[in-house]
Amino acid sequence: MNMPSKHLEQLVEHFSSLPGIGKKTALRLVLNLLKRDDKEIETFASDLAEMHEKISTCEVCSNIADGSLCAICSQNSRKREVICVVEDIRDIMAIEATEQYYGVYHVLGGVISPMDGIGPHDLNIDDLVNRVATGEVDEVVLALNPSMEGDTTNFFLYRKLADYEVNVTTLSRGVAVGTELHYTDELTLGRSILNRLPFDMNLVRK
Amino acid sequence: MNMPSKHLEQLVEHFSSLPGIGKKTALRLVLNLLKRDDKEIETFASDLAEMHEKISTCEVCSNIADGSLCAICSQNSRKREVICVVEDIRDIMAIEATEQYYGVYHVLGGVISPMDGIGPHDLNIDDLVNRVATGEVDEVVLALNPSMEGDTTNFFLYRKLADYEVNVTTLSRGVAVGTELHYTDELTLGRSILNRLPFDMNLVRK
Repeated sequence: MNMPSKHLEQLVEHFSSLPGIGKKTALRLVLNLLKRDDKEIETFASDLAEMHEKISTCEVCSNIADGSLCAICSQNSRKREVICVVEDIRDIMAIEATEQYYGVYHVLGGVISPMDGIGPHDLNIDDLVNRVATGEVDEVVLALNPSMEGDTTNFFLYRKLADYEVNVTTLSRGVAVGTELHYTDELTLGRSILNRLPFDMNLVRK
Repeated sequence: MNMPSKHLEQLVEHFSSLPGIGKKTALRLVLNLLKRDDKEIETFASDLAEMHEKISTCEVCSNIADGSLCAICSQNSRKREVICVVEDIRDIMAIEATEQYYGVYHVLGGVISPMDGIGPHDLNIDDLVNRVATGEVDEVVLALNPSMEGDTTNFFLYRKLADYEVNVTTLSRGVAVGTELHYTDELTLGRSILNRLPFDMNLVRK
């Protein structure tokens, strides 16, 4: 694309460097911004400039935080004996939205993926082991994505944590609520039969 | 969504105010930016802050420009007697990419759309009339999108320009190159029969 202005081109470059945004979309975004008033652009730009300064990561769990501890680690009501291991902060937000979990978290920052050149040393695994090594943790819930890389990482963490007296659990795999059985893939359906549960009247009523 | 940081939330708000970007996508973009180094974020933010200052519109045609005249209006080789009227600068870029047009442009900044509350006075129409009123223009090519709003605007411009001695033309409507005839809609196919052209050996060879 032949841009009518050098500065426009630079801005389009910045926006199109973001994931899932191509040149044409980036141009549409920049043209939309051009129509806004100065003040709005100013706050956008200054918020962006200050992002590294103002957004920090939690010292304990690597979740995003406003200060040194994240909103979850600083809550007194949380059970510190249960740690849920997730790939990324979006998973924390998804689990928090269920209102079913009262432990704390640990953000790995990715999963082991040799294809993308990500090994165990690129992840936040040592911190997790250190947290478990204090002896204050009863359970580690592995809540990584159900993919090949997620499973590899689960296995690696399980082996790493085997030296400690801690209960390692994973999210249950099974039929998703609201789906039709005959559309569920074989692997999921197979696991849901293997891991069948005693019938619970309470779950039906909810 | 319950964000773990106020500043993160603000940035997500900024990004999700852009067209076609929802909260979840905005969060993905901000998390991606968080991983970049300081220098990269700094140039992004400063380029954004300077956008209104550095990107101007051409005095003549309202195209985006680095100075007072756009790259096209400042070219000596352009035929100033032919003006192509477009909705937005992306249309200029599309027409320029064809390398088939050697006149100049006029950016309307939109089309008449009563549904969106856009009337003729919100568009750059008076400037176009002034350009034609100089008597130096032979032809005005209406190159608006082939939609209801585009056609309404075409008609409005045609009436406005009727007082001047200027040839008003529009882009030809017809069967698009590479499509299959039986998939072409009736209106387009009908027009392409009505506006049939003498067979041109040169077009076949190209």
